[in-house]
Amino acid sequence: MAIDINCDMGESFGSYTIGNDEKIIRAITSANIACGFHAGDPLVMEKTVLLAVNNGVGIGAHPGFPDLMGFGRRKLETFRGEIRNYLIYQIGALTAFAHAHGKLLQHVKPHGALYNLAAADAVVAREVVEALQAVGRELILVTQPGSVLAQLAREAGLRVAREAFADRAYQENGQLASRSLPGAVIHDPKTVRERMIRMVLEGTVISIEGKTISLEADTICVHGDTPGAADLAVDIRNELEKVGIEVKPMGDFVA
Amino acid sequence: MAIDINCDMGESFGSYTIGNDEKIIRAITSANIACGFHAGDPLVMEKTVLLAVNNGVGIGAHPGFPDLMGFGRRKLETFRGEIRNYLIYQIGALTAFAHAHGKLLQHVKPHGALYNLAAADAVVAREVVEALQAVGRELILVTQPGSVLAQLAREAGLRVAREAFADRAYQENGQLASRSLPGAVIHDPKTVRERMIRMVLEGTVISIEGKTISLEADTICVHGDTPGAADLAVDIRNELEKVGIEVKPMGDFVA
Amino acid sequence: MAIDINCDMGESFGSYTIGNDEKIIRAITSANIACGFHAGDPLVMEKTVLLAVNNGVGIGAHPGFPDLMGFGRRKLETFRGEIRNYLIYQIGALTAFAHAHGKLLQHVKPHGALYNLAAADAVVAREVVEALQAVGRELILVTQPGSVLAQLAREAGLRVAREAFADRAYQENGQLASRSLPGAVIHDPKTVRERMIRMVLEGTVISIEGKTISLEADTICVHGDTPGAADLAVDIRNELEKVGIEVKPMGDFVA
Amino acid sequence: MAIDINCDMGESFGSYTIGNDEKIIRAITSANIACGFHAGDPLVMEKTVLLAVNNGVGIGAHPGFPDLMGFGRRKLETFRGEIRNYLIYQIGALTAFAHAHGKLLQHVKPHGALYNLAAADAVVAREVVEALQAVGRELILVTQPGSVLAQLAREAGLRVAREAFADRAYQENGQLASRSLPGAVIHDPKTVRERMIRMVLEGTVISIEGKTISLEADTICVHGDTPGAADLAVDIRNELEKVGIEVKPMGDFVA
Repeated sequence: MAIDINCDMGESFGSYTIGNDEKIIRAITSANIACGFHAGDPLVMEKTVLLAVNNGVGIGAHPGFPDLMGFGRRKLETFRGEIRNYLIYQIGALTAFAHAHGKLLQHVKPHGALYNLAAADAVVAREVVEALQAVGRELILVTQPGSVLAQLAREAGLRVAREAFADRAYQENGQLASRSLPGAVIHDPKTVRERMIRMVLEGTVISIEGKTISLEADTICVHGDTPGAADLAVDIRNELEKVGIEVKPMGDFVA
Repeated sequence: MAIDINCDMGESFGSYTIGNDEKIIRAITSANIACGFHAGDPLVMEKTVLLAVNNGVGIGAHPGFPDLMGFGRRKLETFRGEIRNYLIYQIGALTAFAHAHGKLLQHVKPHGALYNLAAADAVVAREVVEALQAVGRELILVTQPGSVLAQLAREAGLRVAREAFADRAYQENGQLASRSLPGAVIHDPKTVRERMIRMVLEGTVISIEGKTISLEADTICVHGDTPGAADLAVDIRNELEKVGIEVKPMGDFVA
Repeated sequence: MAIDINCDMGESFGSYTIGNDEKIIRAITSANIACGFHAGDPLVMEKTVLLAVNNGVGIGAHPGFPDLMGFGRRKLETFRGEIRNYLIYQIGALTAFAHAHGKLLQHVKPHGALYNLAAADAVVAREVVEALQAVGRELILVTQPGSVLAQLAREAGLRVAREAFADRAYQENGQLASRSLPGAVIHDPKTVRERMIRMVLEGTVISIEGKTISLEADTICVHGDTPGAADLAVDIRNELEKVGIEVKPMGDFVA
Repeated sequence: MAIDINCDMGESFGSYTIGNDEKIIRAITSANIACGFHAGDPLVMEKTVLLAVNNGVGIGAHPGFPDLMGFGRRKLETFRGEIRNYLIYQIGALTAFAHAHGKLLQHVKPHGALYNLAAADAVVAREVVEALQAVGRELILVTQPGSVLAQLAREAGLRVAREAFADRAYQENGQLASRSLPGAVIHDPKTVRERMIRMVLEGTVISIEGKTISLEADTICVHGDTPGAADLAVDIRNELEKVGIEVKPMGDFVA
């Protein structure tokens, strides 16, 4: 009975700060580190990798679209090969910082619009898979269970970590409920904790419609940029451990 | 009796083209590939690495300042750690493309203003050395003979390739003559060839003042962006080989 | 009987050159000048505005998406207000260079993916109209006849210049034929000239299906970045003038 | 007896936030608004201009080097014409947002490394002056009293606002004391207030060495990005008004 907790990190840029990395790093087991396209810069990457190393946290690349102004949240039309090469570039850059501290990369989690596109669009998903085949067959790909990307990655023989969102409601079909729906974001810490424990122990969650649905995940995503996020993350981790669930980097148990 | 010929490559960006890479690649033995900061983008890097692989040319990173508008030719004030981390980032990115084609990086040659600063300024040179110590102790560092960077790199136990410029005149003190001086750029192909042959065979060159000076080099830099550059490069290579000099990637002979 | 000839200009960036501005400027009457988002930089803008001034050519802003790597040709998802403000920014920047030479801006023509989106998508078109309402009610908006943008701009009381493409085939419905269709790009200079003369004199063109269709335009777009483009532009202008058509900046006659 | 209070504003970028603009705008009379090169983006500019308009605050351009990663604080080598054109571009972009709200630009204050270079280096200062001559002879240039820029701007017939820094110590020679010196930054609000009142009423300040020196200024710079900055600004303004000093936009009184 093991679970990983991941969080986006290293999203600061130059004089600009986002997130509360120093605090949240203590609650998580895997860090998705921005690689300079939608966020992050070489100094921030160095600092964030060091933070992960010092806290025994798995190091992952968090590649995004080349769109700092939009923080990688806007869909960008891309042509053949662009996404593959954007990923190779960003994964390579972060790998170098990991190597500088004697570490290997553990995982890759696409960011923002790229995460959503890769989950639903086979053309985009295929390029993500190709990037990992090119530079890191041993890397774990983090995506939603049931996504197109999960399927294509598995078919290609890649390791996949299925991701659940701690504070988000799910629809009956297993998809995330749109943020625009009432109840789509769960704010009560106690409810969040209970949902996550149930998900790990039973592989189920209550959908926004009130039904018990299957939700199997290897890693829980917590958000670092909302007030109270760090406390919530610590909280979730503590509660999981209290009921005997081992919380550890996905690299230790994802097959 | 061996020499390498290197050229800056992969300097195109998006819809913008610089250089004549497809032609010049056939004359050279090592490619300095731009890494997306002063020039180059992920698609260009992929294409250029493939070009190098297909032509048996050594793959090198050509990192520069983050200044696309100035093509990396403008000095940028930097603070502690910036240059080190800019290099780790860029070297890592290019390494990933090399790995994607089953190759290792051979060398690193700083670009433009960074090349000049690292040659003369010990603070900058030290950060360049630190970057290689962090991510690639096996990489060859390309710099001018006698530079501060050459000295610091050797002291750190790094391999150094000393670089000579095919079409540039040297001063009596072994430094390049400023481009503003008459005769600083040598346009006559025959003169260029004879100078390079002499340099390889005898380790000397005639200075702009007319004196025979020592110039020992492991690699000859040819420029790709001037008209006739590709022809000149082919020409130099042919003449070197005619007199029995082996022209091959620096990785094959630099100790 | 008057017509304008427009061309995209000032698309170079730093050390990167695109186009043959010095030559083509002599054939055209209106210049669409890139504003630093998809192409162009402050030095290029200054130089291009001066070129337009010296050749009596109307000065227009050619704003695009903030995507230098994609040259503004990739669709970018945008949120409320982004396109409006991108346009205000770019129009303002170019206006300053025109003012520096004692000139007013004549027109605005969106670039690439933004041109296409604004022609078809009412949300995007509305933001373009809002930008002109905010900073230049006197500016002429260049777009395809029959586009959503043309309609919304007219409703808002803006001046509109309808644009025809010299070397492109049209479908029976008046839309451009997709470049992927055979015959979509017309390469024969004589055919291009004859089509443009007929269009100006009769307001018609032969569609790709072979039918005579209506095509009324105020300005003819010629491309600057293809080989022979400058010669073709000169050629078109000469032929138009030979048959008595006045070729002059759109600002002189668009109501 | 009048004084202006200015503050850098609009330094956020995309999802990144810097400063406390909504609060500090209520204490100041002139806003230096970032123009997208070292900070700011079109949406932030629009929002910040509107904030200034709604609070009756003078609108100024705050142009910087094209260096978002370094926040415009790093010296960048520039070649002939670059600074002039960077300024024309940025001033033009901001002017458009002011026009969109029916306002004229009031002033220009170079940012960061450009502010410091223009104060000391005649070549840089001359390009700043040329930019204002090209696009806005009516604009007020904000710089330190006694700077090279102040002198060249006056010789060119431009209006100059001399700037004092509320929380910084001055040397006997009238220059700012380096931040590295103890006592160079004044943290006690009461001391800051008393210094500013004395400066306005008597035109003097006590230097870091303890001497009374002359310091005549038209505008007081307060910083927006330090904790308590907004409160300090309100505080300074209240105290100035209490002793009968009129606090109003520089455009109302600078000759």
